[in-house]
Amino acid sequence: MGLRGGIDLGGTKIQAVIVGASHGVRGQARIPTPKDGGPDGVIAAMAEAVRTAATEAEVETSALDGVGIGSPGEVDPDAGTVTNAYNVVPDWNRTISVGDILATELGTKIGLGNDVRVATAAEFRLGAGKPYRSLLGVFWGTGVGGGIILNGSPWRGRGAAGEIGHMVVRRNGAKCTCGREGCMEAYSGRRAMELEARRRMKHGEKTALFKIMERKKRVALTSGVWAEALEHNDALATDLIDRAVAALGAGIASAVNLIDVEAVVIGGGLGTRLGEPYVARIEQQMGPHLFVDARPPAVHLAALGDLGGAIGASLLIKR
Amino acid sequence: MGLRGGIDLGGTKIQAVIVGASHGVRGQARIPTPKDGGPDGVIAAMAEAVRTAATEAEVETSALDGVGIGSPGEVDPDAGTVTNAYNVVPDWNRTISVGDILATELGTKIGLGNDVRVATAAEFRLGAGKPYRSLLGVFWGTGVGGGIILNGSPWRGRGAAGEIGHMVVRRNGAKCTCGREGCMEAYSGRRAMELEARRRMKHGEKTALFKIMERKKRVALTSGVWAEALEHNDALATDLIDRAVAALGAGIASAVNLIDVEAVVIGGGLGTRLGEPYVARIEQQMGPHLFVDARPPAVHLAALGDLGGAIGASLLIKR
Repeated sequence: MGLRGGIDLGGTKIQAVIVGASHGVRGQARIPTPKDGGPDGVIAAMAEAVRTAATEAEVETSALDGVGIGSPGEVDPDAGTVTNAYNVVPDWNRTISVGDILATELGTKIGLGNDVRVATAAEFRLGAGKPYRSLLGVFWGTGVGGGIILNGSPWRGRGAAGEIGHMVVRRNGAKCTCGREGCMEAYSGRRAMELEARRRMKHGEKTALFKIMERKKRVALTSGVWAEALEHNDALATDLIDRAVAALGAGIASAVNLIDVEAVVIGGGLGTRLGEPYVARIEQQMGPHLFVDARPPAVHLAALGDLGGAIGASLLIKR
Repeated sequence: MGLRGGIDLGGTKIQAVIVGASHGVRGQARIPTPKDGGPDGVIAAMAEAVRTAATEAEVETSALDGVGIGSPGEVDPDAGTVTNAYNVVPDWNRTISVGDILATELGTKIGLGNDVRVATAAEFRLGAGKPYRSLLGVFWGTGVGGGIILNGSPWRGRGAAGEIGHMVVRRNGAKCTCGREGCMEAYSGRRAMELEARRRMKHGEKTALFKIMERKKRVALTSGVWAEALEHNDALATDLIDRAVAALGAGIASAVNLIDVEAVVIGGGLGTRLGEPYVARIEQQMGPHLFVDARPPAVHLAALGDLGGAIGASLLIKR
């Protein structure tokens, strides 16, 4: 029947989709990433999400052509393993044969890929990047990930290309959650922004961010929490987002000065949640730093939205 | 006979070489870039440099397979033109048919290319980049230029890839000679460093830089002037070079985080003049900013030295 599954594995949620031959979504399921069962619990939840999506699509998982997974951490597509996916669960500190386990669970073959790369591939093949041959995907969420397409093909370097979040935008600048200083992600990543918000609140700044978080029954400042605080003109939230947008502008412009791609596609949890107006602001902040400013790259919001990562993962299964 | 010519056109000097089939240098000539004859004077000097090198190689210029030119400014290889090469002479503010003029002058065909790209190609094919398939060339001189080789081929983007000097290393940082703020070149480019040295001297800092410049009968702080001041532990020169090295480290590491090349080759006037010890210092400064720090790229001094640009230009002429 040509149906394929896709899973976007994240630190906050697991998104599964079932897509048809033309990539249309036939079923989908989204569940919070379980935090207390370790990697095993996460894998069980991934299987559950695919089953739920498959039920919606009226297909047995064993009848799928396969299920692709976009995962953070160190992904080895050939071995079917994921190592050190701390962002998913903190105790994912070893190599887990995600592919083998899920192949048995779901009765179909499994494809594995890096989460940011599959999301970039999805935007390139099906989304906002379709008109272009070279592309920088920027995924603005807990961290800031990047995917690169050059001449129509992914550029992986020695395996780690695309770490745009760790380009330096301010030497000797803010401490990043990676331990380094002045990374773009130290200003723009949701995790770093939350740490800074807590620090400033401790020093007496007022903010509704954590009240909104509690009311929404969240344990961290999610994209939705930031969006609501911005809607209420919360001063601290506004200041931190302005700072994030400025760092994104400088970092993305630096990347464009280096590789001169035709287009930039901005997605990720925060990018998707804040949407077009913030993509326009990032584009504006890029302007002063673009070396060839008469011919800026096209800058687009990711077109596949929330489902982009999972749809991209499904592309790992070849027809 | 298979002899080819190459010209490295710079703001300080014009370097010409004649090379044999195996790229061995048979003749060479180096003359200061004339500053008072406009583009015409520069082109006449280029022809003169090639003739002198050809005499040394015992060949008529009309017997050469061709002469390649590596030029700054906006180079159109197909049209054989160079536009706005302000770095060469300030009044090079229009499009000049360098190719046609020199073809007539020298009686052979002319190839044109961007100066940084031909120097990168030379290091890739014949120099320190030979063992690698992906490479970042960094040319540290008046400005800081970059050339990119991916999968064995130059990556040009939409025509302007490689502007590593204008990657941002400090948002809202030092004013760059390009007019932007916080560019790597604002800290590392020789022109920006000279402006900063003059500024600090005006504010009372002591330095021997300008005395050395006058003694050497230079009109600007050349790489040799900087090198001599460093040898004498001149405090201002040391401070500005430290700042330059730190900015280069952050900027190059950022570039590696994005494109994850196998190797970095550092050349250019200052890079070549200061040599291995400073390449080692740049490598050290990259360290703290490399995201995959367990597997840094190889970092090499350009192997072709001063002649790299001209030899690279000769590669524009296909056998």
